[in-house]
Amino acid sequence: MELKKAIFERRSIRQFTDADITPEELEMLVHAGIWAPTAGNIQPWLFFCVTGPEQIHNIQVLSPGMLGNPTALVCVCSDLNRAFEKAGEGGKTLALFDCAMASQNIMLRAHDLGIGSCVVRSFNQAAVRTILKAPSHVQPELIIMLGRPARVPNPPKRNEDVLFWEEYTEEGEGK
Amino acid sequence: MELKKAIFERRSIRQFTDADITPEELEMLVHAGIWAPTAGNIQPWLFFCVTGPEQIHNIQVLSPGMLGNPTALVCVCSDLNRAFEKAGEGGKTLALFDCAMASQNIMLRAHDLGIGSCVVRSFNQAAVRTILKAPSHVQPELIIMLGRPARVPNPPKRNEDVLFWEEYTEEGEGK
Repeated sequence: MELKKAIFERRSIRQFTDADITPEELEMLVHAGIWAPTAGNIQPWLFFCVTGPEQIHNIQVLSPGMLGNPTALVCVCSDLNRAFEKAGEGGKTLALFDCAMASQNIMLRAHDLGIGSCVVRSFNQAAVRTILKAPSHVQPELIIMLGRPARVPNPPKRNEDVLFWEEYTEEGEGK
Repeated sequence: MELKKAIFERRSIRQFTDADITPEELEMLVHAGIWAPTAGNIQPWLFFCVTGPEQIHNIQVLSPGMLGNPTALVCVCSDLNRAFEKAGEGGKTLALFDCAMASQNIMLRAHDLGIGSCVVRSFNQAAVRTILKAPSHVQPELIIMLGRPARVPNPPKRNEDVLFWEEYTEEGEGK
């Protein structure tokens, strides 16, 4: 798929059919994720692919922001040890950015593969870490719901007046 | 350009020719940014396109992480007022993720247009805000350097053992 099509036609999908996402597809998604930019090549990320219905359910009950019926999840986590070792106190914030850029690669690649996605931040991070049986340095940052789209929503309205030239003006640039 | 090509062949570019980036190209980049996912459609982002050599220089001296000779910058900022109004205290963190995902769209689209990019976090946020003449609720989060590539580095090594199935294991999944 053309990049532009992926960027502009990707929607946040919350209603899915019960068709599976294969392990090979999940590997392709994560592979797209790891080629996101990462400050100092730190790669402070870990990707948990979850396909078991019970495991998905357990995570979903901890995630008020996760509405819908995903058939797979990718939990994108920071490796806080790695982030701190390589970048000190600021490493945790760098890891947030890196995880988000990796997530965007994953969602674009999902759309490319005919897979719907929706990224969620509203969940109990410590509880999700426990469900993933992960140690304390693994911090769940974002969860990407995945599945075959059952319903594609219309594009949401986007503000176009968010572009400024050289410096701030009260009016913005209202393209 | 194919999405896959953009994802896998984008490199962080720090050496640029002196060829200009046009305003139309910058508008196309920002337009790609605003179609990133955004929690609750908050769109807590503002994009400052900087092309004046003096303005670029002024920002660069405040940015130890900005090595190279960009011909344009996009300063991706959070609108903290908007983030707080729409999402409360958590809105600031949501805005970080949204700005990062928008930045990834911008960098992929740049590559699609033959423009090199490198995203930078290491800068003095308050000082860059002052240079941009922006009010206190505008928080510079990431700066994307842009220019025509003069040198494309080899791909950095990426760790492939960052994928886990269902839950954490000491060994990871070592694809």
